[in-house]
Amino acid sequence: MTATTSLPRIAITIGDPAGVGPEIALRALSESRVTNTCIPIVFGDASILRRVGNHLSLRSEFPIIAPDKLSSTTTPSILDLNSIPDPSSIKPGFVNSETGRAAFAYIEKSIDAAMSHQIDAVATGPIHKEALRAAGVQFPGHTEIYAERTGATRAAMCLTSPQLTCTFVTVHVGYRDVPGLLSKQRILDVIDLSADFIRKTRGREPRITVLGLNPHAGESGLFGDREEERFIIPAIQSAREKGLQIEGPLPPDTAFLPTRRDTTDVFVCMYHDQGHIPLKMLAFDDAVNVTLGLPIVRTSVDHGTALDIAWQGKANPNSLYEAIRVAAQLARPTAGVQ
Amino acid sequence: MTATTSLPRIAITIGDPAGVGPEIALRALSESRVTNTCIPIVFGDASILRRVGNHLSLRSEFPIIAPDKLSSTTTPSILDLNSIPDPSSIKPGFVNSETGRAAFAYIEKSIDAAMSHQIDAVATGPIHKEALRAAGVQFPGHTEIYAERTGATRAAMCLTSPQLTCTFVTVHVGYRDVPGLLSKQRILDVIDLSADFIRKTRGREPRITVLGLNPHAGESGLFGDREEERFIIPAIQSAREKGLQIEGPLPPDTAFLPTRRDTTDVFVCMYHDQGHIPLKMLAFDDAVNVTLGLPIVRTSVDHGTALDIAWQGKANPNSLYEAIRVAAQLARPTAGVQ
Repeated sequence: MTATTSLPRIAITIGDPAGVGPEIALRALSESRVTNTCIPIVFGDASILRRVGNHLSLRSEFPIIAPDKLSSTTTPSILDLNSIPDPSSIKPGFVNSETGRAAFAYIEKSIDAAMSHQIDAVATGPIHKEALRAAGVQFPGHTEIYAERTGATRAAMCLTSPQLTCTFVTVHVGYRDVPGLLSKQRILDVIDLSADFIRKTRGREPRITVLGLNPHAGESGLFGDREEERFIIPAIQSAREKGLQIEGPLPPDTAFLPTRRDTTDVFVCMYHDQGHIPLKMLAFDDAVNVTLGLPIVRTSVDHGTALDIAWQGKANPNSLYEAIRVAAQLARPTAGVQ
Repeated sequence: MTATTSLPRIAITIGDPAGVGPEIALRALSESRVTNTCIPIVFGDASILRRVGNHLSLRSEFPIIAPDKLSSTTTPSILDLNSIPDPSSIKPGFVNSETGRAAFAYIEKSIDAAMSHQIDAVATGPIHKEALRAAGVQFPGHTEIYAERTGATRAAMCLTSPQLTCTFVTVHVGYRDVPGLLSKQRILDVIDLSADFIRKTRGREPRITVLGLNPHAGESGLFGDREEERFIIPAIQSAREKGLQIEGPLPPDTAFLPTRRDTTDVFVCMYHDQGHIPLKMLAFDDAVNVTLGLPIVRTSVDHGTALDIAWQGKANPNSLYEAIRVAAQLARPTAGVQ
């Protein structure tokens, strides 16, 4: 479609219009770190972007492109999805069914555009789960929406930063639901996806560390229901037989010490907080969320809608810039090899 | 029994004799940071201590005191429990039923001595759970032994360091057993014990942060089985009604960011790795384990037997020195107030 030497076209969804998404998306359109590596196209409501831009004195006058011209866009642009019937009713910091419905519309359009190869990748702004739920959207998060709508059979969340990269066997489920979702096959799928991601972004074979589920990784069955012996160790053995350089299951509390981090490219985590606690501690503003296993490239900011500071110019756009950078790298993996 | 101006007598159990416990206990007997704040009495086998001392050129000739002279001891000493029939059979790094049985005997004697007020506090060296199990001891850890043997009704583990202090509603149980162990009363007990600990060690009313169980603290019931609404929030409300300064339930992944740490004296955690992951990352060598809610004072190192470096002189004694320091402070709380 495009020559590999051209810049990738990346959709940037603004997320919930009442959150910090619109202002960081606008900033991205003017940011040289972004425009040097891709052609950013903001998916949202142009009227909201104009209001935010005027309010914060940010440039918001970019070309508004027609949906059928996406694949020929060559400059930073806005795709006006016109999803909000009465834009003046939107108040910064207040989410409701209307903002949730609009956020979901931007996501759906980004999936359509990526699946039909009109764009090369998607970087998403933050959504608000209660607003989505108020709009009748039952997905717990972006990852699940993109997985289902693209027909992915083995997607996984990855959080990556210069300090630490984690992938997740389970993510947005209740604490008590985690053990029932573990299986050798699921863990092996996430190991495979993790290996692919490191190959694409670092251009070499990965060093993988897999965590246990239980305290002390179960201590040979002393704690828990032998989830390590039943699921995790068999998955590690299968991965090793494929030639992967992999260790584990490690006690979760010592896995993230510096010596181990220095020799690990990616940590395969069993549940949300096992990886999110160390990631937020080490890389609060730098982490990028990548959905692995999709037929399209999708990355995201690693923060929420931050309703308390929405439309105030205080939101740090760094996580979005990083998300766009990683999306561009994955859209052109051969150019991203170190 | 003793005037409050005298130094407290502190039992130091050597833990598993095949681990690093004997060498760090010997070092403590000669360390001025220890002997300036307490009268240390090492509980173990004198023959093992001599072997380790000779091997590492560490002083091991301290007065051997008779069990009935414990309460009149005024200098660093050894209580020879003579628990190992054939000391020459003990090999550094190799634990078995014999080393487990000996480690348990030291613990039992320390409990007897503390309950009968012959000593003022206990600081324990590291034990090996598989050795204990081989010896027919079914407790998962020190905390549970001390709780049961002292008749404590609401004990809790606390890990404390200059960087971070955490207490635990559940500790050495399998991942899947945690939700079934949560109750409003248990969480409130741990909050109360946490508050007492901060008052004793810092001499003021504590600022307490309570974590949620589920990702994002359940996000108003979106994840999990509403454990936050059913147990955690009611416990926080009861604690607040008693006048405690308390916040939560917080999303576990952002609870440990610097701004929150700066305004929190103690984090009440729902399960082992929720608090152990950040603690090991921030305070690997400095943390002290304190069992709250006992009728006696008991602290411990926050590391294991480190069998791979046992009897090699490489073990860092800092965690034991810190454990002794905190034990002395708790044994004489009025002297510990800042």
